[in-house]
Amino acid sequence: MSGHLAIVGLGPGDERYLTREAEEALQAADALFGYGPYLDRVPERPGQARHPSDNREEDARAKAALLHAADGGSAAIVSGGDPGVFAMAASVCEAIEAGPHAWRALDIAIVPGITAMLAVAARAGAPLGHDFCVLSLSDNLKPWALIEQRLDAAAGAGLVIALYNPVSRARPSQLGKAFAILARRLDGTTPVIFGRAIGRSDESLVVTTLADASGVAADMASLVIVGSRETRVIARPGSSPLVYTPRAVESVSA
Amino acid sequence: MSGHLAIVGLGPGDERYLTREAEEALQAADALFGYGPYLDRVPERPGQARHPSDNREEDARAKAALLHAADGGSAAIVSGGDPGVFAMAASVCEAIEAGPHAWRALDIAIVPGITAMLAVAARAGAPLGHDFCVLSLSDNLKPWALIEQRLDAAAGAGLVIALYNPVSRARPSQLGKAFAILARRLDGTTPVIFGRAIGRSDESLVVTTLADASGVAADMASLVIVGSRETRVIARPGSSPLVYTPRAVESVSA
Repeated sequence: MSGHLAIVGLGPGDERYLTREAEEALQAADALFGYGPYLDRVPERPGQARHPSDNREEDARAKAALLHAADGGSAAIVSGGDPGVFAMAASVCEAIEAGPHAWRALDIAIVPGITAMLAVAARAGAPLGHDFCVLSLSDNLKPWALIEQRLDAAAGAGLVIALYNPVSRARPSQLGKAFAILARRLDGTTPVIFGRAIGRSDESLVVTTLADASGVAADMASLVIVGSRETRVIARPGSSPLVYTPRAVESVSA
Repeated sequence: MSGHLAIVGLGPGDERYLTREAEEALQAADALFGYGPYLDRVPERPGQARHPSDNREEDARAKAALLHAADGGSAAIVSGGDPGVFAMAASVCEAIEAGPHAWRALDIAIVPGITAMLAVAARAGAPLGHDFCVLSLSDNLKPWALIEQRLDAAAGAGLVIALYNPVSRARPSQLGKAFAILARRLDGTTPVIFGRAIGRSDESLVVTTLADASGVAADMASLVIVGSRETRVIARPGSSPLVYTPRAVESVSA
């Protein structure tokens, strides 16, 4: 089969986060597929078709792009952040495994991007400077009890925790529940970072503590980082504090 | 203080992984600091000083760059991958906290980059498509017993595991020990990915199983991803398999 499919990470909102490889992959496609607001971030090009779809239509989007490639086209699916982290790359792999055998012969390229936790961490300091764990708080595709188990295991193991999909309209209270579970293992003074729309004009970054975290507003576009017992905060005159997790851990009990 | 320090992620080896923000930050500096091989990846510019240092001189490098900024200069520290993941951003934060109080008034910018696990995952498929954990296997700065605890906790919690610093000349056998610990929790058929020098001419990607993983050669520049019980492999005619972790998990016992 001669068709081609690229799954391209756009990074967070700002086009300055685009890599050259991503720019080239977007230019090479004859049809773009993606969640509407992500597609809107890609400049229109003559002769390049655009197929926007809704947030929850990942399966249909993956199939449409694979069909385009199977017809000999050059498709690109755009993904916010990195396509491999709670994004379209897994959807496409699922569609390939479930689809016609011929799809396995397609030329598939996954183009990495700056995922939200890296952008938020960079704005805050270096909270992911030591061992960490990355969890989606959405229970659309896994049981909430499993999320509770993983939160407890991660905090118990001394890992910093990055939380994707912390809140949605259908799940307004789960982030608060997650903080309560973590509070069994971690002091109330543990640093917590809320990042949103990093790189865009409406960017926000809030540094607070686990004790106060449930009072901070968050939404689907937020990314939350909960520190470990080792994570430290350096106050700075006239600017936001630096939050970082040191490279060294002295004792096993930590 | 008028000085400026940028800590810039170069991504993996290929310059196509550079973001525009990183290119701009490198252009704006009047002095570059970094591990020699990373500095070698940045084109020389007239009037821009270059201060290469050795791999293990992170503390001295951070201080030298901070001193340059405190003198009113515009310093940039280059970092492979992302500066926030087992790299220079934490070193700089440590130096600021331990250093003169005036350093807290410096303008510090951390510029994220494509960290190795994202590049390796993209080449392999979507192994990080579900919850995962990121560990450094180096016991230079933490006890080996803590690493063992975290490996066990992560595998027990059903997390995919990305391993940075899997091997060094001083630690030739720890990766094999890590696989043995994981084998207590995971089947021998669990997919394991070894990525090295992704984006460079000597790039390599090996997909194997936990049972066979200890026989694969790795070094300091390798990044290893160990799947979870959910991770799947799609064989493809004429090209390497797609390895991915589905978005959905059905049961809590997983």
